[in-house]
Amino acid sequence: VKQVTIIGLGLIGGSLAKAIRCKNSSVRIIGWAKQMEEKASCEQHGICNRVVNHLEEAVNGSDVVVVCTPPDVISGLIQEFIGELKPGAIIMDVGSTKEQICHEVLKISGANGCFVGAHPMAGSEKSGIVHAQEDLFKGKVCFLTPTNDTTMQTKEKAKLFWERLNMRVIEVTPEEHDEIVACVSHLPHILANILCVHLKQENLSWGEYVGQGFKDMTRIADGNPDLWRAIIEQNRNPIVQQLKAFKEVLTEVIESIQMKNGRSLHAFLEQGKVVREDLR
Amino acid sequence: VKQVTIIGLGLIGGSLAKAIRCKNSSVRIIGWAKQMEEKASCEQHGICNRVVNHLEEAVNGSDVVVVCTPPDVISGLIQEFIGELKPGAIIMDVGSTKEQICHEVLKISGANGCFVGAHPMAGSEKSGIVHAQEDLFKGKVCFLTPTNDTTMQTKEKAKLFWERLNMRVIEVTPEEHDEIVACVSHLPHILANILCVHLKQENLSWGEYVGQGFKDMTRIADGNPDLWRAIIEQNRNPIVQQLKAFKEVLTEVIESIQMKNGRSLHAFLEQGKVVREDLR
Repeated sequence: VKQVTIIGLGLIGGSLAKAIRCKNSSVRIIGWAKQMEEKASCEQHGICNRVVNHLEEAVNGSDVVVVCTPPDVISGLIQEFIGELKPGAIIMDVGSTKEQICHEVLKISGANGCFVGAHPMAGSEKSGIVHAQEDLFKGKVCFLTPTNDTTMQTKEKAKLFWERLNMRVIEVTPEEHDEIVACVSHLPHILANILCVHLKQENLSWGEYVGQGFKDMTRIADGNPDLWRAIIEQNRNPIVQQLKAFKEVLTEVIESIQMKNGRSLHAFLEQGKVVREDLR
Repeated sequence: VKQVTIIGLGLIGGSLAKAIRCKNSSVRIIGWAKQMEEKASCEQHGICNRVVNHLEEAVNGSDVVVVCTPPDVISGLIQEFIGELKPGAIIMDVGSTKEQICHEVLKISGANGCFVGAHPMAGSEKSGIVHAQEDLFKGKVCFLTPTNDTTMQTKEKAKLFWERLNMRVIEVTPEEHDEIVACVSHLPHILANILCVHLKQENLSWGEYVGQGFKDMTRIADGNPDLWRAIIEQNRNPIVQQLKAFKEVLTEVIESIQMKNGRSLHAFLEQGKVVREDLR
């Protein structure tokens, strides 16, 4: 890989540029940013070799193009630049949802063989290139979601790309991916938000009595509402399924407490503790 | 205060002994422990001046007695040692619930004037004297829940006691206290447990894909199930009320997502973010 294009220079795009630069000082990194502040920040800190405004110019001559924008605009951007791609180049996105994106991209003429969805499971409640870190991806999981149309060559290149950044690559279908992240990522995010909204509805002044437990549980509620709305809308059904399943356990727990079923309450607490202890 | 007795030497009792010692090297600290390992650990590390097995002996001559056991045995212990108390001495407990404990203690002959419930809002998912820290309380809130029977002198002594450990003392009724902690402490704890149990029900192997968000949200699920069962049983009604109110918001959010009501979803995400930003 001699040249990489990063479309979208927020937290993930910016961290990706830094991580690539850190691993390999000779690769040429081209950035594309819509917002002037991202462009300026990126140029100022020398994160990319060049930052351009035109998509066609951005992807021209690159071996790997990674789309790091919010999920709802990914396929539209790919459609725009697909005609300018160098033969043999691959395209990835890093959206938090995969089924809808992969489905949309597969309909773009010329994109099916060279595209593979990716989702590096790294992030932060903070957003924007100012929070970009070169070690954001290190040691984390990166999902790859090839489809039947993805060529073996594309898949192998993609796998190597993330492994070079010290990520653990896991291959799943787009559908499996969306179920997994609905459970381990989207559900907790929504619960953190509900807990905050609930506090407000109960008594906002109680906020001064919260301890570290409450703070840790709600840290991710600080995420970008536009981004999260887009993620939730793109992964609606798996998320609704997760929320409903969570609600069922909640209902059972309320019943145990109300019915003074101490044994069942204890078993529930014990089970939660055992699961938590096993998370590495 | 020349002598303090600490009944129960777990995380809180042990940390309290260390904190008092740190502030004042001349105060005599008497510990009472039921479990031999606590007694041994305490003696070995010189956390207390003496550790004894007999309650009467433990409280003899002390100016302040602080009961740091699980909440379900507090009033029983006070009943046992109340007759041995030095005139002018005060009794506090540090249980996570207050109404039931205060109610029980008020029925003990001789205990009403000299007792005030306390709840230093400090803790950890870790338990036991081995995790005791002298700075556990520093800068945190300590609730005091005096009743009409509590004498002014008792209240003032109690307030000074916690302020000397650099805590911010907040006076509320036992009922108010229990509502507040049901919301800011017990609810998050139960939600953390539900999230763990839910993960197990969905697919335990997905645990290897969880990120920092999920881990932070479930950290407190690692608490002691016996202790938490006792806390939940002592604060049943406020907790059930909190869980039900949380469930209502959850139900509304599920509806917004299902009905594709993007505006309402966005407002929800925005509101959660604003509340989170305001937590200090």
